[in-house]
Amino acid sequence: MPREPKPIRSDIAWSTTDRITIRGLDLPGEILGHLDLAEFSFLQLTGRRPTAAEGRIYTALLITLVEHGLTPSAIAARMTYAGAPEAMQAAVAAGLCGLGSVFVGTTEGSANMLAEALADDDGTADLDDVARRVVSGFKERRAIVPGVGHPLHKPIDPRTPRLFEIAEAEGVAGRYVELMKRIGVEATRTYDRELPVNATGAIGALSCEIDLPLKAVRGLGVMARAIGLVGHILEESEQPMALQLWQRIDREASAHIRTAT
Amino acid sequence: MPREPKPIRSDIAWSTTDRITIRGLDLPGEILGHLDLAEFSFLQLTGRRPTAAEGRIYTALLITLVEHGLTPSAIAARMTYAGAPEAMQAAVAAGLCGLGSVFVGTTEGSANMLAEALADDDGTADLDDVARRVVSGFKERRAIVPGVGHPLHKPIDPRTPRLFEIAEAEGVAGRYVELMKRIGVEATRTYDRELPVNATGAIGALSCEIDLPLKAVRGLGVMARAIGLVGHILEESEQPMALQLWQRIDREASAHIRTAT
Amino acid sequence: MPREPKPIRSDIAWSTTDRITIRGLDLPGEILGHLDLAEFSFLQLTGRRPTAAEGRIYTALLITLVEHGLTPSAIAARMTYAGAPEAMQAAVAAGLCGLGSVFVGTTEGSANMLAEALADDDGTADLDDVARRVVSGFKERRAIVPGVGHPLHKPIDPRTPRLFEIAEAEGVAGRYVELMKRIGVEATRTYDRELPVNATGAIGALSCEIDLPLKAVRGLGVMARAIGLVGHILEESEQPMALQLWQRIDREASAHIRTAT
Amino acid sequence: MPREPKPIRSDIAWSTTDRITIRGLDLPGEILGHLDLAEFSFLQLTGRRPTAAEGRIYTALLITLVEHGLTPSAIAARMTYAGAPEAMQAAVAAGLCGLGSVFVGTTEGSANMLAEALADDDGTADLDDVARRVVSGFKERRAIVPGVGHPLHKPIDPRTPRLFEIAEAEGVAGRYVELMKRIGVEATRTYDRELPVNATGAIGALSCEIDLPLKAVRGLGVMARAIGLVGHILEESEQPMALQLWQRIDREASAHIRTAT
Repeated sequence: MPREPKPIRSDIAWSTTDRITIRGLDLPGEILGHLDLAEFSFLQLTGRRPTAAEGRIYTALLITLVEHGLTPSAIAARMTYAGAPEAMQAAVAAGLCGLGSVFVGTTEGSANMLAEALADDDGTADLDDVARRVVSGFKERRAIVPGVGHPLHKPIDPRTPRLFEIAEAEGVAGRYVELMKRIGVEATRTYDRELPVNATGAIGALSCEIDLPLKAVRGLGVMARAIGLVGHILEESEQPMALQLWQRIDREASAHIRTAT
Repeated sequence: MPREPKPIRSDIAWSTTDRITIRGLDLPGEILGHLDLAEFSFLQLTGRRPTAAEGRIYTALLITLVEHGLTPSAIAARMTYAGAPEAMQAAVAAGLCGLGSVFVGTTEGSANMLAEALADDDGTADLDDVARRVVSGFKERRAIVPGVGHPLHKPIDPRTPRLFEIAEAEGVAGRYVELMKRIGVEATRTYDRELPVNATGAIGALSCEIDLPLKAVRGLGVMARAIGLVGHILEESEQPMALQLWQRIDREASAHIRTAT
Repeated sequence: MPREPKPIRSDIAWSTTDRITIRGLDLPGEILGHLDLAEFSFLQLTGRRPTAAEGRIYTALLITLVEHGLTPSAIAARMTYAGAPEAMQAAVAAGLCGLGSVFVGTTEGSANMLAEALADDDGTADLDDVARRVVSGFKERRAIVPGVGHPLHKPIDPRTPRLFEIAEAEGVAGRYVELMKRIGVEATRTYDRELPVNATGAIGALSCEIDLPLKAVRGLGVMARAIGLVGHILEESEQPMALQLWQRIDREASAHIRTAT
Repeated sequence: MPREPKPIRSDIAWSTTDRITIRGLDLPGEILGHLDLAEFSFLQLTGRRPTAAEGRIYTALLITLVEHGLTPSAIAARMTYAGAPEAMQAAVAAGLCGLGSVFVGTTEGSANMLAEALADDDGTADLDDVARRVVSGFKERRAIVPGVGHPLHKPIDPRTPRLFEIAEAEGVAGRYVELMKRIGVEATRTYDRELPVNATGAIGALSCEIDLPLKAVRGLGVMARAIGLVGHILEESEQPMALQLWQRIDREASAHIRTAT
């Protein structure tokens, strides 16, 4: 550790007594009133303003990820709020902690799968061939193909056709979207059960179409879910369920070992 | 605990095999492509669609809170990412945990101050009188008046006039904005130093103008900062500073007790 | 912010190529094999080695706080683990986030109440008088007396007599323990229902008896519960309940608004 | 999701009005005053009381992991406390979030490496052969051998000989300890630089010797560091450094893009 200190630097923002600049734009003069929230988020993450089409796609991706009902993440946030209502930020934090490989990872997984499959594509590869290679690769590794199938939404995940429709309307539905669709078809054929493209598959494909850095894809879910969790915490503050659930769960879980009183 | 179980309920969302409904609107058909991210966030939190003017004010509030440079919160997130790069969601969570009374509380504080001061107002109260009463109340309690003054941005916080300008353009600058301005004047007079309205004061005033629930005001900062933190984590992944800072801090902090080697 | 940088320092630990020193003791030579975990924890927090009696009291306080069944905190940790099993540390973190004013605050509250009540005590104050003053103070402020009463453990919290017994055996049961007992009696009389001293009241009293800094008292619960939560997460990894609970909760909570399919 | 609800169960603890039982033992009667904190932690995690020797080894493992100076984790906790001093539990949580693959994973990695290498061992395998196979395996995969080498502690990590000494004194230094030592020798030879067994290697070996479940090994670091972090937060509350660091870091990081004022 007795090494020479190296300089640190960040290119995101700076401020002086009378100026605040974020990603090269003046906050009061060029951002406030000029960008919407999703566009500003895109700027914050990538360093560039999105085109109008990219902004609308990015908006759709984020909105799709905000609210998925009483997920484990929402339950964790409500449980945390019940214990520390004075620290709402910690309840959101607790809810975010679980956005890992099981629930948000599949979004990242689809994006990675598509980006890899088309890494060397010059626009001439046969996408049916690519889809077959991708699906058989997962099958051989006994891994789950990301972005296809859904426990509840069958035979179609209602978000997928809508996301693809928006992408087409914005003129950004290209080879990633096409490949994702064919992976859905190929997976359905290979595993012989309905495995249509789900919302995370559509999100992965659109993330690639608008050239979002792969590392940003998990970030989408994290930012979006922060909004969703604030909604759950506000509802918990007015219409609580956490303490009721606690009682039920604690009683049921230990019933088999609890001595009668 | 042997009480009768009570039912639990949430009014935020529901889904079936072919439908997803959030706050009463169909996600694919009525939300995606129809609301922007801030409008949807407003809907998620309050249960109602904002008017266009409310949506633009709400957007400006959120954007103002996204990025404030290398704050303690951003540093905590980067430090966490350095240790667990595979769990980016936990790095965001760590960064959010510190949005408490010191940094985000003043936003909440301004909103509460204004809402209380005008709780019984029928639109005829003399706002100079109210401002005097509010400031002298804080002075008597030896408490800090929230929403005024800034260590760096002097004599004017450049965000404040812009936020008020947007509010006026949208026709929502009413008595809360007016009172906040007079509190700035009165505080400057009372404490005899520059204490103009800062960004958190402006945010508190505009939150009241668009009738945001007081409990949602801290939520604004939490949602917004989640976006900012994802930006910092992506930069940390490409242009790291955490390990360099660790070495410097650890060496300096223990220099006075470390035995020479 | 253009202020002169001030030095930073920490007195906890330092290391060189061949030495590691914590709170002035050599880790390999004076700590490992010489202190037990609770004694070392006391050293880490306070900077001094506890006496043998203090170490045993401190051990009892910590052990009492480790495991309280399927609390909201344990549920939050399990929910988080279900989503991000690769980041167990984040699941413990999520569980800790809820140890706030509702569940752990009462420990802190009892300690503060006792410390304040005997702040000027020279050992001659009439403890019955003090107890009456304390309880009537809470009653007037319509605040809950911390450290008395329990929803399940009635008429006696079985931990309390045992903790007091250990304190007596170690010779540290002094005026804080005595006052806490009388507050239980006085509260029972004042509110006319069983309000005996509960575990948090006993912990608050013993924390005062061993002179633990008041700020460390919430820390007790945090450290102890980290142990408890690791236990819950290991069980969840082998005998899961989180996904099952998710399904039940999500279905029940939205049943009233879900359209039949 | 319209599946039949399945029962949930936990075997850790239960309580009734007058009893509290944890892992089959009565908390007041059989645990308090009878087990030390590390022994109780072992019981909570594994469901069984450790032998006296196991308890002492386990104590040494935990103590070794408590305090490592101003690590990224400690810095994150202090930064969080500066923003939300009313929520100390969230500051500990923030500090724990970063105990992932970079800093605590190597402990887990050593344990996994040793457990795998000796999975089929009947006590007759030549440990030099095994060590060679293990090290060349890592080299071929271009992966880092866990548990050897240290940036500061060279040529010897002072914790390692002490941990092995304690293991020998307790009669639990067996084939895992022996294999770990030979992996250190073999790694030093293969990579032609000093790569002696470090503390995480010793901890991995001892975890195997006392038969700790592999999933519990990361838990060791999490529980231990929770203690360390409470110490750092208490120091931060009396001798703060977070705000000072913030100023320095923010200024330096944006100096290259900040416009002079």
